[in-house]
Amino acid sequence: MKQTSTQFKGIITYPITPYLPTGEIDLKTLNQLIEKLVSNGSHAIAPLGSTGESTYLNDEEWTDVAQASIKAVAKRLPVIVGVSDLTTANAIKRAKIAEKAGADAIMVLPVSYWKLSNNEIFNHYAKIADAVSLPIMVYNNPATSGIDMSPELIMQMFRAIDNITMVKESTGDIQRMHKIRVLADNQLPFYNGSNPLALEAFAAGASGWCTAAPNIIPQWPLKLYEAFQNNDLPLARDVFYKQLPLLEFILKGGLPTTIKAGLKLQGLNAGAPRLPLQPLDEAGSRKLETLLGDLKKLC
Amino acid sequence: MKQTSTQFKGIITYPITPYLPTGEIDLKTLNQLIEKLVSNGSHAIAPLGSTGESTYLNDEEWTDVAQASIKAVAKRLPVIVGVSDLTTANAIKRAKIAEKAGADAIMVLPVSYWKLSNNEIFNHYAKIADAVSLPIMVYNNPATSGIDMSPELIMQMFRAIDNITMVKESTGDIQRMHKIRVLADNQLPFYNGSNPLALEAFAAGASGWCTAAPNIIPQWPLKLYEAFQNNDLPLARDVFYKQLPLLEFILKGGLPTTIKAGLKLQGLNAGAPRLPLQPLDEAGSRKLETLLGDLKKLC
Amino acid sequence: MKQTSTQFKGIITYPITPYLPTGEIDLKTLNQLIEKLVSNGSHAIAPLGSTGESTYLNDEEWTDVAQASIKAVAKRLPVIVGVSDLTTANAIKRAKIAEKAGADAIMVLPVSYWKLSNNEIFNHYAKIADAVSLPIMVYNNPATSGIDMSPELIMQMFRAIDNITMVKESTGDIQRMHKIRVLADNQLPFYNGSNPLALEAFAAGASGWCTAAPNIIPQWPLKLYEAFQNNDLPLARDVFYKQLPLLEFILKGGLPTTIKAGLKLQGLNAGAPRLPLQPLDEAGSRKLETLLGDLKKLC
Amino acid sequence: MKQTSTQFKGIITYPITPYLPTGEIDLKTLNQLIEKLVSNGSHAIAPLGSTGESTYLNDEEWTDVAQASIKAVAKRLPVIVGVSDLTTANAIKRAKIAEKAGADAIMVLPVSYWKLSNNEIFNHYAKIADAVSLPIMVYNNPATSGIDMSPELIMQMFRAIDNITMVKESTGDIQRMHKIRVLADNQLPFYNGSNPLALEAFAAGASGWCTAAPNIIPQWPLKLYEAFQNNDLPLARDVFYKQLPLLEFILKGGLPTTIKAGLKLQGLNAGAPRLPLQPLDEAGSRKLETLLGDLKKLC
Repeated sequence: MKQTSTQFKGIITYPITPYLPTGEIDLKTLNQLIEKLVSNGSHAIAPLGSTGESTYLNDEEWTDVAQASIKAVAKRLPVIVGVSDLTTANAIKRAKIAEKAGADAIMVLPVSYWKLSNNEIFNHYAKIADAVSLPIMVYNNPATSGIDMSPELIMQMFRAIDNITMVKESTGDIQRMHKIRVLADNQLPFYNGSNPLALEAFAAGASGWCTAAPNIIPQWPLKLYEAFQNNDLPLARDVFYKQLPLLEFILKGGLPTTIKAGLKLQGLNAGAPRLPLQPLDEAGSRKLETLLGDLKKLC
Repeated sequence: MKQTSTQFKGIITYPITPYLPTGEIDLKTLNQLIEKLVSNGSHAIAPLGSTGESTYLNDEEWTDVAQASIKAVAKRLPVIVGVSDLTTANAIKRAKIAEKAGADAIMVLPVSYWKLSNNEIFNHYAKIADAVSLPIMVYNNPATSGIDMSPELIMQMFRAIDNITMVKESTGDIQRMHKIRVLADNQLPFYNGSNPLALEAFAAGASGWCTAAPNIIPQWPLKLYEAFQNNDLPLARDVFYKQLPLLEFILKGGLPTTIKAGLKLQGLNAGAPRLPLQPLDEAGSRKLETLLGDLKKLC
Repeated sequence: MKQTSTQFKGIITYPITPYLPTGEIDLKTLNQLIEKLVSNGSHAIAPLGSTGESTYLNDEEWTDVAQASIKAVAKRLPVIVGVSDLTTANAIKRAKIAEKAGADAIMVLPVSYWKLSNNEIFNHYAKIADAVSLPIMVYNNPATSGIDMSPELIMQMFRAIDNITMVKESTGDIQRMHKIRVLADNQLPFYNGSNPLALEAFAAGASGWCTAAPNIIPQWPLKLYEAFQNNDLPLARDVFYKQLPLLEFILKGGLPTTIKAGLKLQGLNAGAPRLPLQPLDEAGSRKLETLLGDLKKLC
Repeated sequence: MKQTSTQFKGIITYPITPYLPTGEIDLKTLNQLIEKLVSNGSHAIAPLGSTGESTYLNDEEWTDVAQASIKAVAKRLPVIVGVSDLTTANAIKRAKIAEKAGADAIMVLPVSYWKLSNNEIFNHYAKIADAVSLPIMVYNNPATSGIDMSPELIMQMFRAIDNITMVKESTGDIQRMHKIRVLADNQLPFYNGSNPLALEAFAAGASGWCTAAPNIIPQWPLKLYEAFQNNDLPLARDVFYKQLPLLEFILKGGLPTTIKAGLKLQGLNAGAPRLPLQPLDEAGSRKLETLLGDLKKLC
């Protein structure tokens, strides 16, 4: 039986990428944020994912964020770095930078302008996998990447490519997780990347929840995970429904946009997301403030 | 607070409608089947649903099945009768027949050839509700009816129409259940009508699972429900994944088609579904036989 | 080469089915309407289509409308009768009634509650075709029937079933027509059933346009067809864009609903469509009145 | 009335971007290709579109191709340069480079990883428009960009932003063109970007067809356009159906992939598209060779 990555489980948090008013990366705030995430109980840190605006950074900025994030975590938690890029060559370059900087794993989403055939997707992963010795999390998110990988394709890659050891499913369709579990005979750990599916994904056997929510409500995703650890479904259901309105809000508004707005409400100014993305508008911020306040009362 | 129907919970089973070789309704086999369902532990019986080929029967046949089913259950379990029809007038006629025959509730799906506006759907339900005093289960299943009712519309009807007291969601989208629960402040019982969603629907708080599966594997849906009653999620997950291949198979092949094939394999000849629906082909029957055999070994 | 039906081309009009205030079929108004359609230049009449509320009629009513419509046309134009029904048995019954009453062809849409496999669809058509000697128009309209027949399946039926000689495509996707034309090497006449596609369908080589529009604007579809007959594309484009707002309006509001409202505005009271379908509301009627007035000024 | 760009009409051709075996841009082959396109009758040249692999180039490469293409055309034809980029800042940078290099217009597709609100899209265009004085072609292609702009949004930008003067619609849905024409009262020139819609788009009044096809079959798109110029619809239909199999083939296989394969078959080696995109496989190349041969016989 293939060895899978057991170090990643529970709540895997995506930090946003903060900018200075000048538009440059704000490494000081990034450090503060990661310190907060680590001390608040996340089980792993995943910089440069969708929430981290990875695709909106140039190569130098990307490298800075990868290195700074890994350094800030300082081996206290496992770190998985998103290295997705439009070309295979650039994704490999990023994978090597992540490995050299000390990442524990990398996450790869097959972003592409032109749709990719299964064969093209397979080769993209195979080439990245060849270039590094890190475990790879396959990431499926057609809503952002435009490419939908079937459970069958994911299984084919899991079987054929040694360092593919995890899969993150973000379609929001629970049947994908069922299929992956059944096809892999429960040997391929799967992770949930759709916030409003957190309750059911854990019920279905997900190893972890990859989420940006802990940036602003660190305790709530933890409560959910712990309820499942204690086999307390009524409590899990209760804490899930309590945080659901906020989870839906941050997803619908775009994670970089809403998480940065939430951090600002909590006193951490991480700047606005990069144009064309705009900061959350005033009405949205008021709504978010209310949702955060509601959750605080329930703590 | 509005009074809701508490008598329906757990496993609500759809009997198929058996035919004689001549094509007429086979009431004797119907009696046998219902006897089997009652004695095997279903918590309620739901004749003339999708599985019961309701829309393929003429008026007289429909009445015969409704009356015979209610009589066969003989008050041992609650009975909910599907009264859906293309015209409001005919749905009302069927609702009255069900009420007179002693049904405990009726289920209404807004089938229509032309798409209906929210206003037309609302009035369809209101007129049926006016005609009887039975509790009504709103049934949303766009894959068969062609009409998708939003949680907001369902809530509006729940609030405005007294005897609407339950909702069955068959889109297979767990977010619909979340939305209904949140909008109704957990006061509107929701039921799952999508077999492969059974695990997650109960996790999300569904009151019951409306399913044709107990026709051929009566103990498995019960095991799932009981595991949830005992707050034993690992067991629930285990029994769900065991029955999932069969649940997916019967859904994909069309429920009247596959359930009748399964009954035949088990010695109960209920005939073929009505043309244009065809009986399960030989390869499908072999596959079904294997799936049933696999489950038997696991009992 | 298989002989196809050459008698159907140009503007093929769907009469609505009028009701008396009591809800019964209004045969007198039906006669008046058909007289108007014939004298206003339609090239063929197609009773009991989607617009004719075929699925909302009981068997006796359906027979009355079929017979009355054929009699009213009185061989002045070819008549194609919609015989679609949920069961194969009933569709055959209707096909025979249409044949006996003197129809020139029948139109068959595979309506079904449960999705049909290609094999089930094929056999449905084959059995109806066996029962009559009339030419059959295959009708694809997934938005109302819930079943989408691929060009490949349609071709397979055209090749294997003698009296299938025409196809009406109502998906609104022009690529379907391209595919049918290419697959059939231009030997299978195709008809457009999507009003807002009328210009492009004729450009792509459609033999006719099946439409309810001539009930209320008889001259406009004719103008479009005649412009194409005269190879005058600029004129075709001009008359198409002029009638397009009305074509979109009647489609969006549901054809029985909007056409009956239009007839009423023009002095012919055909009653409301059957519940759950409702008559056009006041605002809709005002809008329709304006659209009809705008077109009148352009005549 | 706003002044629109009248210089772009007819066949607007996308050159592919050739690479050397080392992976670098092959400017010599680019020159040859553009020379061929100009001399073969294209009405305008559109470098760095989807076909030009614009998103797969780094900034320096992009600049090289923009400058070289404009220089190669040498004012013999109007040039429209695709300046789309993930960030507004980079799109502006590219727009300025294109302007300085002598482009006649720019084309902008709102590519984004995160979905953009209408407000974010509007501002993206407004900021690019502010930065240059060139006419802008709004480009809608949700299949590649992940963002679908409604005709209403496009109209709003056309009305509010001075140098937006054209729109290219690539959804393949002819109703979008109808809507744009009606909303703009025929004052906003629209262009077709979906190859298999070429016949109908011209029928509906498109000003031009943006296509990669002339790279390998320069005369066929011209024949179609000329037939429409001569109001000869039967000829237009004939030449469209003749080239349709090839148009579908190049679209389905991905334009950079198939066009480069076609050029190679014709003796011009432009290299493979960039990984993860792969060159057309052997079976695909044989198929393409046959399609090209079939068309040659029909000339």
